Amino acid sequence: MELEKIILRPVAMVRNGRSAPGDYGWKDTVSTIQLVSPFRSDALTGIEDFSHVEILFHFHLLSPDKEVYSSRYPRDNPDFPLLGIFAQRGAARPNRIGATVCRLISRKEDSIIVSGLDAVDGTPVLDIKPVFLAFLPEEEPGEPGWVSRLMKGYF
Amino acid sequence: MELEKIILRPVAMVRNGRSAPGDYGWKDTVSTIQLVSPFRSDALTGIEDFSHVEILFHFHLLSPDKEVYSSRYPRDNPDFPLLGIFAQRGAARPNRIGATVCRLISRKEDSIIVSGLDAVDGTPVLDIKPVFLAFLPEEEPGEPGWVSRLMKGYF
Repeated sequence: MELEKIILRPVAMVRNGRSAPGDYGWKDTVSTIQLVSPFRSDALTGIEDFSHVEILFHFHLLSPDKEVYSSRYPRDNPDFPLLGIFAQRGAARPNRIGATVCRLISRKEDSIIVSGLDAVDGTPVLDIKPVFLAFLPEEEPGEPGWVSRLMKGYF
Repeated sequence: MELEKIILRPVAMVRNGRSAPGDYGWKDTVSTIQLVSPFRSDALTGIEDFSHVEILFHFHLLSPDKEVYSSRYPRDNPDFPLLGIFAQRGAARPNRIGATVCRLISRKEDSIIVSGLDAVDGTPVLDIKPVFLAFLPEEEPGEPGWVSRLMKGYF
């Protein structure tokens, strides 16, 4: 069975002057998320009362033919286990969507400023969601040992 | 400025026998997330080592013309503040994407079983991501008072 395709329109764009993707130093990266037409400042009313937002975005630099549909080594490094694409968070995934919780620094009319967004300058944003406590895990999630090795220095 | 549209293909479908959306009792809802063609079990290899997964999905029951582009009262209830659509998590949002962290109960070949997914039977899934500790907020997020009133009984 195949399901119908879904057509999305970006709602905003990332501006941060960072031109190259990479696996280090995202925590201190400050990004402006600028709404695009037809969205205006009223779409952000009240967001400044949250400390964190989740940004859904499109890894637009990656060609669709680089999407992995089965398994791969994280970062193509065989020091990590061979894992299904849905057991890792790498960009080369079906639909190429990133989802990252960021600290909300401030709001300016029709844009917000965040830190910790792992997306390059020009990235199309698909959604902006406030982080609700009720949507976070109730207890600390469990993860396999390779994750902390992979994530060292990433944020 | 408007950005180019983005075309996505669902990677899986939700099966849980729950036919109506609603704002209560999602925590105990158990859902099977069944991969669709061309995805097979190797895309899930290793996911069973995580306790939680984040599911990105499409609110497909909602008509695109119901998308709110500016502000609304959460649940259309004026007891809540009038808020920008990006300052709330309601379904009637641009692109109609949901993003929910779920408990991973088990994996069975080309499907996973989760609890706490707030999506009805037949919902198209856009991505499955393992929850990494490094992607969660470092400290407890701050939220305005209306959120806990809104979320009471939701999960």
